Amino acid sequence: MQLKRAPEFAFIHHYLKKLSGPGSLNLTDDAALLEPEPGMEFVLTADSMVEGVHFLPNDPVDTIGRKLMRCNLSDLAGMGAIPVGYLMTLSLPRDKFDENWLSLFCQGISEDQKKFNVFLLGGDTTRSNHDLVLSMTMIGKVKQGQALRRNKAKSGDGIWVTGTIGDGALGLLTLQGKVTDHKGYLAERYRLPKPRVNLLMGGIASAGMDISDGLVQDLGHIVRESQIGAVVEISKIPCSEAALKLGDAYLLNCLTGGDDYELLLTIPPDQEGLAIKKAEAAGVPLTKIGYCTNQIGETCFLDDQGQEINFQKSGWSHI
Amino acid sequence: MQLKRAPEFAFIHHYLKKLSGPGSLNLTDDAALLEPEPGMEFVLTADSMVEGVHFLPNDPVDTIGRKLMRCNLSDLAGMGAIPVGYLMTLSLPRDKFDENWLSLFCQGISEDQKKFNVFLLGGDTTRSNHDLVLSMTMIGKVKQGQALRRNKAKSGDGIWVTGTIGDGALGLLTLQGKVTDHKGYLAERYRLPKPRVNLLMGGIASAGMDISDGLVQDLGHIVRESQIGAVVEISKIPCSEAALKLGDAYLLNCLTGGDDYELLLTIPPDQEGLAIKKAEAAGVPLTKIGYCTNQIGETCFLDDQGQEINFQKSGWSHI
Repeated sequence: MQLKRAPEFAFIHHYLKKLSGPGSLNLTDDAALLEPEPGMEFVLTADSMVEGVHFLPNDPVDTIGRKLMRCNLSDLAGMGAIPVGYLMTLSLPRDKFDENWLSLFCQGISEDQKKFNVFLLGGDTTRSNHDLVLSMTMIGKVKQGQALRRNKAKSGDGIWVTGTIGDGALGLLTLQGKVTDHKGYLAERYRLPKPRVNLLMGGIASAGMDISDGLVQDLGHIVRESQIGAVVEISKIPCSEAALKLGDAYLLNCLTGGDDYELLLTIPPDQEGLAIKKAEAAGVPLTKIGYCTNQIGETCFLDDQGQEINFQKSGWSHI
Repeated sequence: MQLKRAPEFAFIHHYLKKLSGPGSLNLTDDAALLEPEPGMEFVLTADSMVEGVHFLPNDPVDTIGRKLMRCNLSDLAGMGAIPVGYLMTLSLPRDKFDENWLSLFCQGISEDQKKFNVFLLGGDTTRSNHDLVLSMTMIGKVKQGQALRRNKAKSGDGIWVTGTIGDGALGLLTLQGKVTDHKGYLAERYRLPKPRVNLLMGGIASAGMDISDGLVQDLGHIVRESQIGAVVEISKIPCSEAALKLGDAYLLNCLTGGDDYELLLTIPPDQEGLAIKKAEAAGVPLTKIGYCTNQIGETCFLDDQGQEINFQKSGWSHI
């Protein structure tokens, strides 16, 4: 008797195999093997995305997997780690159990694999009765002791961000038809974030993370974990041309909305020169927006008159 | 301004933090850190489970996470690896976004963490609009070069299994009310598989894997990957008392049904003594059910008259 793989999963295996790389054992076994390199540690992060919650049912198929991959890569960048590979689990509803859908989905991922030099190591594919649910565990590597943490910022360090802030949050609004988008720039930033994997700031920045929950909330994480305070001058926060066109009314969205996938770094004064050089070499815009203080737990956003802004759920106001 | 974590996720964080261990950085950062041990490789495996597909909506809450954990641990056991830790993503529908549900869920996992000596390294929690979806990436370690693969079985090696075969598949039938269960033994086997993590057969078995898709299909994987043939004597396949009570009518379910989470091993004749000793020391029943042949791709199941049985989807019959 010749035993065949269950036919409904055979075509999935066919597509996923093309994405596999070193360590995946060609997806033939129960697990992948990762051989450590001397002097390096592994960094592991996991994210999941649910249809109707994290992406829209009519989002282009080829962007769905790429977005999850890029969010995970951004987490690695936040820790200063070099991407290695990933495991992915797919829970597929009936309408996505077809070759056309899977081929487009994998095509998007395949492009990003080349771009970011990662490969599929393993995973699982199952049926889902309702929504598409994706989960990805991304593995990176970092020199021993050089992983960027959130708890090492010191009073006096500068607060820096890469790129522009708020585009992702505004992109979601444009896709919901709530604001107009200049040439689709914001929607693109929402659908396909650009993880800063080419800017490794371990050993230069004192603390770091990627901005995924909004600048305000994520700065709060560093403030809390490092037991410091923070002052940010709102006028220094870099915004894209498309975001600026929408005006001050959307400032709250920019600073609290999330989906930036830029880096938030604290950099000691004596490392600033080196940080700027490194960012220039990587072609990544790096902007100083404030500084760390010894007012433990206090995060203060100042407007251009030097007045503190208080962010409320319903809007923002001067205190 | 004091910045607080989004309140709807704060209680989740509270429960998950109690599950975290070495390398998780207390779940404060974007990712976990894993330091390699000299001479060891990492083994990584991922599985997901969807409500209504892999577990029943009325399954006891504390068994849901444990089942996923045990399936993953079984994959590690299949590779001969020692468990280290895991990342978990949870997509929670509204009715499971409460402290009572999460507390029970984490309590079950916590018990298994102690039992199997693993810890939560990281993950992600999101909302889901419909079903509960869980995904877990489990990390193990194995001596360099000693991972059990599927592609190293040789003609002449014996085919062995641990424990008893078919209980998980029959357990599902009992929970569906299709067969009667003796003292709930089969249902328990379905809900809480016992991964054979204490039987590390690297360096002893020639090939190995865990049986999750049914003995027939999983033996097919080894046959295909190792480019061998296989002969199995059905009368030698170990079955539990509860399974035997149901009689021959359920033989097909036992051999093709899946959810065993026992080990399937090929063992060269000169290693049999050592394998038996090791299994005895671990308190794991180990039974020889057949042997590998040079009939590439041919898997043959013989009844007690020595006649070949052919498994068809609709049932099984003599060829």
